[in-house]
Amino acid sequence: MPYITIKLTEGRTLDQKRFLVNSVTDSIVNSLGVTPDFVRIELVELKKDIFAVGGELVCDFGRSDLKEEE
Amino acid sequence: MPYITIKLTEGRTLDQKRFLVNSVTDSIVNSLGVTPDFVRIELVELKKDIFAVGGELVCDFGRSDLKEEE
Amino acid sequence: MPYITIKLTEGRTLDQKRFLVNSVTDSIVNSLGVTPDFVRIELVELKKDIFAVGGELVCDFGRSDLKEEE
Amino acid sequence: MPYITIKLTEGRTLDQKRFLVNSVTDSIVNSLGVTPDFVRIELVELKKDIFAVGGELVCDFGRSDLKEEE
Amino acid sequence: MPYITIKLTEGRTLDQKRFLVNSVTDSIVNSLGVTPDFVRIELVELKKDIFAVGGELVCDFGRSDLKEEE
Amino acid sequence: MPYITIKLTEGRTLDQKRFLVNSVTDSIVNSLGVTPDFVRIELVELKKDIFAVGGELVCDFGRSDLKEEE
Repeated sequence: MPYITIKLTEGRTLDQKRFLVNSVTDSIVNSLGVTPDFVRIELVELKKDIFAVGGELVCDFGRSDLKEEE
Repeated sequence: MPYITIKLTEGRTLDQKRFLVNSVTDSIVNSLGVTPDFVRIELVELKKDIFAVGGELVCDFGRSDLKEEE
Repeated sequence: MPYITIKLTEGRTLDQKRFLVNSVTDSIVNSLGVTPDFVRIELVELKKDIFAVGGELVCDFGRSDLKEEE
Repeated sequence: MPYITIKLTEGRTLDQKRFLVNSVTDSIVNSLGVTPDFVRIELVELKKDIFAVGGELVCDFGRSDLKEEE
Repeated sequence: MPYITIKLTEGRTLDQKRFLVNSVTDSIVNSLGVTPDFVRIELVELKKDIFAVGGELVCDFGRSDLKEEE
Repeated sequence: MPYITIKLTEGRTLDQKRFLVNSVTDSIVNSLGVTPDFVRIELVELKKDIFAVGGELVCDFGRSDLKEEE
């Protein structure tokens, strides 16, 4: 432990993912005082045709106000 | 919140998924009284070679009695 | 299948939960055409000291704009 | 119930997965005394560019000491 | 890895849980050929007022045909 | 989105949890460029009698080599 799952919409580059897992691991290590090698992170990249907000699949989105979130 | 995950075997059409997320969001809104935009739904479509019932992968299924469930 | 997980903050009554699981099961059955008895729903009631929005635990919330969501 | 999720890195053969779900189902049935048909197992095969140990994506791994785990 | 989650209704004894995690770990080790110490198992014990089958919370169950499953 | 789940063994203080969610939210915001208010974090605190490593429940642990991880 700890085991971390990060759910985010599809589309980040490999380098963004590298930076993300490295940075989050540092936060976990500094907050909980565990050894880095015990920290496992799983990224769950959600395709836009299987994730919905407000009853609408993100792939069908038209409302700009939510675009930034996704 | 709320965050809903629906696990189902692969194979539904995009329109079925549209109807599903819309209908479930309505149920959530009517039951919990939250704003639709706060309701997030994630569909997890399970391929038949990674899901098992009774110790058998669904892709190896022969027994008709469980076919309807999958 | 299908297996549904609904994460929501703690505090709903048993009757609200009864209405919720019944209504969501109906939506699933009508959308996917599966038998009700195959539909399983798990409610995950999140305590406010283990759920955070915007870097703040909900139990520490002061900003009214997010109160309705939680 | 019971519902079992097994997360493992990608790369096992279909036969390995068949053996795995069959063997784990037997363990569950013998331990809990439920009927095999009620036991559902989902395999989550993690690609090496979305799973990290010690702040590093497994696809970037160089340290042999962790190779066996992944 | 691997990380295993076993969801089951509440009510098993500590010894049953000891036997369960030991037996499932053996199955995983024999099937996947990983070292036991890399196998993590999380038991999620579901209370009967937050788990529903067929639109009904298990705590409200009357139908004996499903009692054995739970 | 994003939705983060952090599984860790029970026993951290409320202040440790405050520091943890705040620090991880910063990492997410800096890595993915999303607005803090869209970042949700769920802490799953695992009791030692439902989490096992190497086939043994953590509450039964005797081997000091794994103590630090848990």
